[in-house]
Amino acid sequence: MTDSPKTLSEHRCFGGTLRFLEHDARTIGLPMRFSVFLPPQAANGPVPAVMYLAGLTCNEETFMVKAGAQRLAAELGLALIAPDTSPRGPAVEEIEGATASWDFGVGAGFYLDATEAPWSRHWRMESWIVDELLPLVARHLPIDGERIGVFGHSMGGHGALTLALRHPGRFRSLSALAPICAPTRCPWGEKAFGGYLGTDRARWLAHDASALMQAQAKAPYPRGILIDQGLADKFLADQLHPQHFEAACAQAGQPLTLRRHAGYDHGYYFVQSFVADHLAHHGNVLRG
Amino acid sequence: MTDSPKTLSEHRCFGGTLRFLEHDARTIGLPMRFSVFLPPQAANGPVPAVMYLAGLTCNEETFMVKAGAQRLAAELGLALIAPDTSPRGPAVEEIEGATASWDFGVGAGFYLDATEAPWSRHWRMESWIVDELLPLVARHLPIDGERIGVFGHSMGGHGALTLALRHPGRFRSLSALAPICAPTRCPWGEKAFGGYLGTDRARWLAHDASALMQAQAKAPYPRGILIDQGLADKFLADQLHPQHFEAACAQAGQPLTLRRHAGYDHGYYFVQSFVADHLAHHGNVLRG
Repeated sequence: MTDSPKTLSEHRCFGGTLRFLEHDARTIGLPMRFSVFLPPQAANGPVPAVMYLAGLTCNEETFMVKAGAQRLAAELGLALIAPDTSPRGPAVEEIEGATASWDFGVGAGFYLDATEAPWSRHWRMESWIVDELLPLVARHLPIDGERIGVFGHSMGGHGALTLALRHPGRFRSLSALAPICAPTRCPWGEKAFGGYLGTDRARWLAHDASALMQAQAKAPYPRGILIDQGLADKFLADQLHPQHFEAACAQAGQPLTLRRHAGYDHGYYFVQSFVADHLAHHGNVLRG
Repeated sequence: MTDSPKTLSEHRCFGGTLRFLEHDARTIGLPMRFSVFLPPQAANGPVPAVMYLAGLTCNEETFMVKAGAQRLAAELGLALIAPDTSPRGPAVEEIEGATASWDFGVGAGFYLDATEAPWSRHWRMESWIVDELLPLVARHLPIDGERIGVFGHSMGGHGALTLALRHPGRFRSLSALAPICAPTRCPWGEKAFGGYLGTDRARWLAHDASALMQAQAKAPYPRGILIDQGLADKFLADQLHPQHFEAACAQAGQPLTLRRHAGYDHGYYFVQSFVADHLAHHGNVLRG
């Protein structure tokens, strides 16, 4: 295994460079893919970065091609990092249940380290992202590893909120689009946590954004958290539960801007519409 | 057959509405799909529109989800119209050769009316777009049918340039991204025109943008034509030939802004990077 990521493709975009990369991930034991957009400012030295965690069924390309984020990232001088959403390839696809459903297994890593076999061997997304990927990009690319923000969509919103709360100081800024806010209390979360973490629900709470926020003694993100949620989102009532996270923030004294948007659904037309506000939020904190 | 288009899905986007629609196209003899983005200003009455013609293998969704155009269209008060790139479905997929290659048949209509069997029955993209689709959207949606611009990418750039030159007065503004500029002199064009129009090359010239421009007695678009072209585009040397269109414009006295961009390739990261300039160009002409 080599440390250097391999460039699979490279595209000029808004005066910067978008790269699709792969590296041998020791945490996962398999090659893992991610994409990085470097804004024009990165030619002059390390820039702050925002990592975007994608939702169920997505991969490292989804955000870069569908969200329209590079325009503002190039203006603000922010790098963008978008990891894949799970291990992939023949070695994992032959595991029973890995590809049977769209909300578990391949494309559905839920940004945690599985403790239950057979998932515990490769499904170690939290370790990969926090311990391996972020140091890797700071080491090999003009990215300032001390100025990293995180956001995400749906399952990736859950990932952003939980990774940011589980790793104090790792991320400077935090936001989410239509996040799964209380996975221990929704079908997607119950299925994923039951499979990856086992039946002891007490252990699930360590990966539930609302429970994690409720346990905070003081606001972990004093500059505020931004969440956007569409009110025509068909997953809102059963899967997302922003009200639980809102209540937990109120209890912890965590400033939260939770915007509810009439008519918007769960997809990338919603993400496109508000992504600029998220990058502006991260830019304010990371460059401030 | 009914005249009204059927809404297949609808998405709120940048304060406007994106619809995916289908109608029974009499010109084509089959249902055809297209998408329309209505900006917020359409709530107050008909708005000007820009039609985007997509490239090989694309469909009515490609532009809307990958180009990031709705942001500026919503700002400028422009509707966007994106037709599919060919007839589709079981009735045409069983035609021999319809799905055998990515540059002919399904997904590769080349925006003309085929004269050769078996294509002449359904492959009538020019009649569909000009005679049927544009009147349809002006009749059923808050779109001002007298203020329509056209642009496109690659095969769709060829479509934009040729439809605009073949139908004087139909389009008020014109631009293209990495267009096929001289299809009678490139492999994509030779294959498509040979199949759809037959072996008489003299008849091909009526669908060649450079030949059409060369035949103009005066500038058909006095407000100018905008073309962007990436210099790292792998199709530039063999397939696109902007220099032929540039020479024809010079001969016809047609103002042309042809921008050649170092490092940019043929894909949607290139389109994303420059789409705002195209919408600004159309907005200036259509709202001027």
